[in-house]
Amino acid sequence: MIALRTYIELYTHLSDSDWLCISNAFERRFISCNEILVTEGTVCRYFYFLEKGLVRYFFNNDGIEVTKYFTVAPYCFTSKESFRQKIPAQETIQALDDCIVWQITNEKANSLLELKGWSEFVLKFMHEVQTHFEDQLLEIKSKTAEQRYLKILKTYPETIDKIPLKYLSSYLGIAPQSLSRIRKKCQL
Amino acid sequence: MIALRTYIELYTHLSDSDWLCISNAFERRFISCNEILVTEGTVCRYFYFLEKGLVRYFFNNDGIEVTKYFTVAPYCFTSKESFRQKIPAQETIQALDDCIVWQITNEKANSLLELKGWSEFVLKFMHEVQTHFEDQLLEIKSKTAEQRYLKILKTYPETIDKIPLKYLSSYLGIAPQSLSRIRKKCQL
Repeated sequence: MIALRTYIELYTHLSDSDWLCISNAFERRFISCNEILVTEGTVCRYFYFLEKGLVRYFFNNDGIEVTKYFTVAPYCFTSKESFRQKIPAQETIQALDDCIVWQITNEKANSLLELKGWSEFVLKFMHEVQTHFEDQLLEIKSKTAEQRYLKILKTYPETIDKIPLKYLSSYLGIAPQSLSRIRKKCQL
Repeated sequence: MIALRTYIELYTHLSDSDWLCISNAFERRFISCNEILVTEGTVCRYFYFLEKGLVRYFFNNDGIEVTKYFTVAPYCFTSKESFRQKIPAQETIQALDDCIVWQITNEKANSLLELKGWSEFVLKFMHEVQTHFEDQLLEIKSKTAEQRYLKILKTYPETIDKIPLKYLSSYLGIAPQSLSRIRKKCQL
């Protein structure tokens, strides 16, 4: 569980008493490759810390599965609006590798907000995620699929091979054949 | 200034003492149409409440101006990372109409975080903005430019005419001529 403390302390210092409360509120779970953690249309009950592995988010767009994004360990994730408001999720979250996650319920996460360490972490994490979405929007508006692929390749060289071609091409908004051509070109 | 209190109270209740501190920390400013509030490459010093008017965010992409998004009153805006970290902004923010804004410095905004009312507002506002960016990403991945144009037309029927065609087409990621065709088709 030390991985969770190390992760939170990337954002803020935790006192030992804060950490005791936080660690008691999380429970560990093992997820097999391809297992579904959250199903579109149902309520996402947990906020997760991904200690090991990789997950992808996708939604159904008139019968076509569209990949929104991926989360690579160590990082936190959830289906935010569903988790916060207890409404049906607009996305499915699937493990793309055998994963270790730590999960916490909405009620427990809210009660932790009284702790300085946890509330500071949540605020800073939210700033980071918001910036990430802004950056994604910027990239889509200003970069080609090839430039975006190269950035992923550079940032996650060991992870990218675990993502099936059809998911990565859906994320980039191009046909699988176009991604194959980009990949071959980049290997030259 | 009542507009700012009304706006914040859409998110959370404010005690009179909290409101007194908040209202003392903001100052009013009039911005003329086309005036620049934040320039790409310089530090954004303020968090703004837009009481009246409309602003757009754009950035330079290898010599081409790309419109990221718009903010329509009443709403808050800033160049977030620049404001938070005092680093050069990655975007320019320009008024597209005569505007009334209320501005607050980083130091004053941070000191207000000790007030329950202000910190709750900031947290809820951030959740909303993050969800907005997620929705934008989803739309870009799943909707056509025409569907996205129709949604803006429906949501902001009185504002859309104030946005020059070239900015709106840049936002939608299409040529101005394509947007003209969509507009004509929608007027039939």
